[in-house]
Parts: sequence; C-alpha cells; structure tokens
Amino acid sequence: MALIVQKYGGTSVGTVERIQNVANRVKKSRDAGDQVVVVVSAMSGETNRLIGLANDISSAPNPREMDVLVTTGEQVTIALLSMALQEIGCDARSYTGGQVHILTDNAHGKARITDIDDARVRADLDAGRVVVVAGFQGVDEDRNITTLGRGGSDTTAVAMAAALKADECQIFTDVDGVYTTDPRVEPKARKLDRITFEEMLEMASLGSKVLQIRSVEFAGKYNVPLRVLSSFEDGGEGTLITFEEDGVEAAKISGIAFNRDEAKLTIRGVPDQPGVAYKILGPIGAANIEVDMIVQNISNDDTTDFTFTVNRGEYKKAHKILTETANTLGAREVVGDDAIVKVSLVGVGMRSHAGIASQMFECLSKENINIQMISTSEIKISVVIDEKYLELGVRALHKAFGLDEA
Amino acid sequence: MALIVQKYGGTSVGTVERIQNVANRVKKSRDAGDQVVVVVSAMSGETNRLIGLANDISSAPNPREMDVLVTTGEQVTIALLSMALQEIGCDARSYTGGQVHILTDNAHGKARITDIDDARVRADLDAGRVVVVAGFQGVDEDRNITTLGRGGSDTTAVAMAAALKADECQIFTDVDGVYTTDPRVEPKARKLDRITFEEMLEMASLGSKVLQIRSVEFAGKYNVPLRVLSSFEDGGEGTLITFEEDGVEAAKISGIAFNRDEAKLTIRGVPDQPGVAYKILGPIGAANIEVDMIVQNISNDDTTDFTFTVNRGEYKKAHKILTETANTLGAREVVGDDAIVKVSLVGVGMRSHAGIASQMFECLSKENINIQMISTSEIKISVVIDEKYLELGVRALHKAFGLDEA
Repeated sequence: MALIVQKYGGTSVGTVERIQNVANRVKKSRDAGDQVVVVVSAMSGETNRLIGLANDISSAPNPREMDVLVTTGEQVTIALLSMALQEIGCDARSYTGGQVHILTDNAHGKARITDIDDARVRADLDAGRVVVVAGFQGVDEDRNITTLGRGGSDTTAVAMAAALKADECQIFTDVDGVYTTDPRVEPKARKLDRITFEEMLEMASLGSKVLQIRSVEFAGKYNVPLRVLSSFEDGGEGTLITFEEDGVEAAKISGIAFNRDEAKLTIRGVPDQPGVAYKILGPIGAANIEVDMIVQNISNDDTTDFTFTVNRGEYKKAHKILTETANTLGAREVVGDDAIVKVSLVGVGMRSHAGIASQMFECLSKENINIQMISTSEIKISVVIDEKYLELGVRALHKAFGLDEA
Repeated sequence: MALIVQKYGGTSVGTVERIQNVANRVKKSRDAGDQVVVVVSAMSGETNRLIGLANDISSAPNPREMDVLVTTGEQVTIALLSMALQEIGCDARSYTGGQVHILTDNAHGKARITDIDDARVRADLDAGRVVVVAGFQGVDEDRNITTLGRGGSDTTAVAMAAALKADECQIFTDVDGVYTTDPRVEPKARKLDRITFEEMLEMASLGSKVLQIRSVEFAGKYNVPLRVLSSFEDGGEGTLITFEEDGVEAAKISGIAFNRDEAKLTIRGVPDQPGVAYKILGPIGAANIEVDMIVQNISNDDTTDFTFTVNRGEYKKAHKILTETANTLGAREVVGDDAIVKVSLVGVGMRSHAGIASQMFECLSKENINIQMISTSEIKISVVIDEKYLELGVRALHKAFGLDEA
C-alpha cells in the first residue's frame, strides 16, 4: 500500500464531466490499494472570472481581500470532486487550505508554506477516505487566507507529499510527461521516463512550463519523488522526476530547453573602473527588472563592453534606464535586440562527459547559426541566438545529441 | 457613536455596481460616526448556480460537501465589498464564518449558532475598520464548514448584533419596511414605523416574508433591536422591530397577514372514542406533513368530524393517508379543499381590546364571505376562507380596522 498525492490542474477539472473523470482515476488508485490525497486547482476560467470582478471594483484590489476572493475557486472544486467520489462509492472528504492547516507567511498573493499539520489528513486516510485538498491556498498565523501565487497548486501537492512522507507526488497535466524538447518545435521529441530534479529545474526555468519551478525546488528539498502524468490519457507512466541520478538514462543530454521571452542589451565603451558592473546593473535591479545572462568584455582602450539579457516585456524600460546610465558613465552607446532566443542543453550527464560545449558550438556552426552569448552551469549550456534560427537550432541539436525518437 | 450591524441580501449585492452602492451606504453610516459590521449574502443567482453544479454530479450531494460548496458564494461577496469599501477610502476587512468564529452545531445545511467569538471583530472596529462578515455560514467544533440554511444571513446578522451588543441590527431588503398588509393586494397598505417582535413573528410565519422567522426569534431572545430598510431607496427609516410594546402605535391591529399556501382536509363520521385525534394525525405527522389549524366537532350520533389544514403542496399525499386512516377507523368519508386561504389579524393591541373577533366576523359576513375555520392566539385571529375571497376579505378588514393610509 503506497501513499500517493495526486494533483489535478484547472484544465483537468474544468467541467463537471472532467471532475467525474478525475474521480474515476482517483478511485482506480484507491481500488489498487493506495491511500490517496488529491490536490486540485480552481476550474479553468474561474480564477480569471473572479479577478475580473475584483478589477471591476478596483484597479489595485487589496491583496488580503484578493486572496479571500480567489480561494473560493479551489473551494468549489474540492466540494464537487468529493461529491463525485462519493457518488461512485469512494468515501472522500474535502479540506480548504485553512482547514488542513497549511500554514504560510502573510505575503498575500505569493505566500510561502511554513508548516502543515497533517493529523487530520492522516486520520481520514486511516479511516479509508480519500482526502481532497484545495491547492494554492493556506492561512497565516492569524488565520487570514493566503495564496501561494498562481499555479501554486503544484507546490501544495509537493508540500502535502513532504508532510505526509508520501511515496509519490503525481502531477496530472495536459501533457503526458517531460519531453526532450517541445514537440511543437521538434516532432521527433521523445518523452523521458525519468529526469533528475536539477535537470527539471533547469528545464522549468527555461520555459518548459510543465511544473512550477517552486514546486520542483520544494520536491528536491524534501526528497519527494514527483511524477508528471497526463490527466486525459489513461495508462501512461509519465515522467518520474527523481533525486537519484543513478537511474537516469546514460545520455549526456536529457533535453533541450528554450526561451523565446528574451531581449539583449549592450552598453559599449564604458570606462573600465572598479564597480562599473554595479553601476550598470544597480539601476536595472532597482527598477525590479530581472537580469538573466551577463557578459563583459575588456576592450583595448581601457573601456569595456557589457551585455545582459532581460525579459522581453521589460526591454523598453531597461533600454531607457541603461541609456541614462550610459550618459552618467560617459559610455559610447547603448544597443539592443529584442529578437533573440536562448537555447539550452540540459543534462546531468555533462558532469561526466567532456566536450559537450564544443560539440554544441560545432553543431550550430554547421547550420550557420551565430552564437551571440554563452553561459554555462554545471548541468547546462545556454546560448543566445537570433530568434529566426530557433527551430533550426533546436532540431539540429536534438539530432546531434541523439535525442530523436528511435 | 453607535454600533450597527447591517445585513444586505443577495439582490442588494447582485452586481458589482450594487456592491459599490452598498459600500457607499456603509460609508455613510461610518462617516456619521457609527461603528459598522456588515453581513452579506451571496450575489443573487450564485447559490443556485453552485447547487446546479452539485446536482449535475449527484442527485443527493453529501451535506458536508454541499456546505463547502455554497459558502464560497458569500466569501466572494465579502471580498468584493471590502475592496469596494477600501476603494472609497473606508478601511475594511472581510471574514468568513469560520474566521470570525461563528461556532455552530454540525447539522449541515441547517446548523444552529452556538457561540460567536467577537474578539477579532471588536479589535477591527476599535481600529476604525468596517468589518464585513459572510452570512449564512459557520464552522462546527472540528472546523467543518456549516450553513444555517438558505436565507440564514439574517440570522448571522442578528447573532453578530447580539454577540457585540449592537445598538441596532439593520436588515436591508428590497422592501422599505413592514406593511400593514401586502401592498400588491391592498394598495392602501401603510408602512409601519414600529412593530413588536411577537407581531413580526406572526406576520413572518403567515407568509409576510420580509425576514426569516428564525432571525426574528433570535432577535427577540437576545433583545436585539431589528430594523427593516430598503437597500435601493435612500433616506427611509424603515420599520423598527422592537421588544418594547409601549412605543407601538395604539392601534388594536398592526397588520393583516395571509397565506395562500393552504389546503383543508376533513374526515367525517369518525366513531368518537378517546385517542381518535392521535389516530388521525399520527400517520400524517409520521409522513413529515406539518399540520396547521385543527378543528373537531362532536355530532349527535357518537361520531365526530375532524378538520385540519396542511401545506397545499402536501395536500394529495395527506389526502391519501387520511383515506387509509378513514378505512381503518370506519369513518364515513374524507373530503378536502385545496382552494382555501388563511387570513389573519395580528396585533398586540388585542390583549387590551375586547371584541376584535366579533368585529372581524361581522366585517367578513357583510361581504358575504363564509368563514370555514377559526383559530386564535393571544395576538392573532386566523380564519380560513375560500381562495377567491382573499383580496376582498383583506381589503375589507384593512378598512374596518382603520389600517388604510390616511
């Protein structure tokens, strides 16, 4: 008998019929002898409907009241799913975040879980019940309702799994697992049976939005085995996200992630002096603009060129700030490009395999794709290239690193 | 500075615009120096929408989960109203039934309030905030969500007023007060400035559905002054429902209530023997049919005739049961009539004025209206008449007892 936490997102519970499908799937696990805790999101569209009501009232709704409002979405789902389970003879009981006592800090809209009291859930499981928990929500110490931020139901599921020391946390989504790359870009993309947490973190942060990054971090921290499965197709094994590297396929590279949401800024001819990096990036950070890759070159004439990438949506704002900085510092010019993408090879295999980077550069060079920036970490190599080469680059790399479907 | 509890029903908060109107009204009370606690219902239509979802899943949804489901309706309203108040510069904070700790028994769908912890509300009021509380809901000792039954927001408001020892509990509805009778039947009906709790109870139980009976009982028990006001018209004083008889107008009769929802059954020629009433009404009660008026006549031949009224919707069921009883007891026949109404004079003035009954009978007789049954209590006289005479009877009585508008 295993203890399984299952999480179903908004699309999976978007209609009464889909909720009934989820109930059938939960019952199957229960009938197989497993104890099951189910974490659910609001029915798709509901959270946006509620936010719409708030926006009709205020352009900047109070964050505490916003949490009171939007948490009703999951509360509706837990009640309906419990009813659907009972209707097919599966005893079930629902709990809001506050009832099951998911304690958080008081950062409304983006709270962090600090503790979970699992006594009530355990008692229900021991009594043979399925426990249905509202995702995305908790309460602070004063019992004010909080939310973990949108998509936070994944985090709730992982936190419940950690608190209960569950055998597995299954995240049901509209994809049937984690792929070597986006199948819409490379149809030969292959579903991975396993991937490590570190790889998943890199994949998620690079735009493979199967899971919320925070939930993956959380799972890694508490050694919770995560599995991504399709809530619409039956029988698949999905992808297991594991903290053991041994079991992972021996491939050097697990997948190719990419992010279209990038823009590049360069400040040229900055007089090179200590603290110049801070002087350039300080005003950017102060404007709450997140900087991703950073490259600095020293030129011959005691000036330096400094390049960094930002989220494409903040390109204009960053450009303006950087231009002011350039004036202050006496730099030559500011240039930018918001038609770039970042492509990354991800794989724990890099640790034991040399020459991955040169193999990557060679592959792109053969396709005449110019590399504009390079950044590496222990299990990732990222390059910035012209947006128009995205598909070509991903497919070439997918083939070169042996990821194409057999 | 008074402490006021205001309750707004589903129609009053049915749209974002109406919620904003409520906010303006609340702010007016706040600006006048009063401390205000607001109790709200779900936006009109929302509770039915939620029940519809449940019925799509189950023909008999689990009552605990039903309460989890429908309580989201008020939770949405408290958040939106708090936002609307803050938007117009009125500090406010919302609480669900569980948060403000409205403790109830565990009778899901019809729970009774056992205790309210007002510490948190008082702290907010003292800090100058408006407190917005979700009506209709509470939690049991295990923090399971409960509801007081539909329309229970009135009860929440009265209970909050009692717990806080509020100066007044104001119920905002779509009528601007309590009338001497239904103005749709008698256009000369007059709004009452004051009415006693006892009279209000009789009026409410007779179909003048301005307030939930239970909330009136509750208010009477805890001496909470209740006021009924219109949420759509501004400036009116509404009707004060008071527990002091002294201040009430000296009229003998305060109002005329009626109930169209009645049916009459008679069993004739029942052998008269001890316990016959129980033998007749026992099976009716066992079928959960509520009996209202009861009349028994002894006839000459040692048999008795027995007549009673039931809710019109249960007429057929009651007729069937009574026919079986008649066979068992050897009664002569069962006759019935489901086209009758009950008309009642209500007034604490009856206590000190003799001859009200004969004046009533004389008035109806003058209009050739036959009285089929009579029942009296300390402050009420009810008669059953043919349905077709309802309007004529009410108008005649309204005039005879001096209730017509001056």
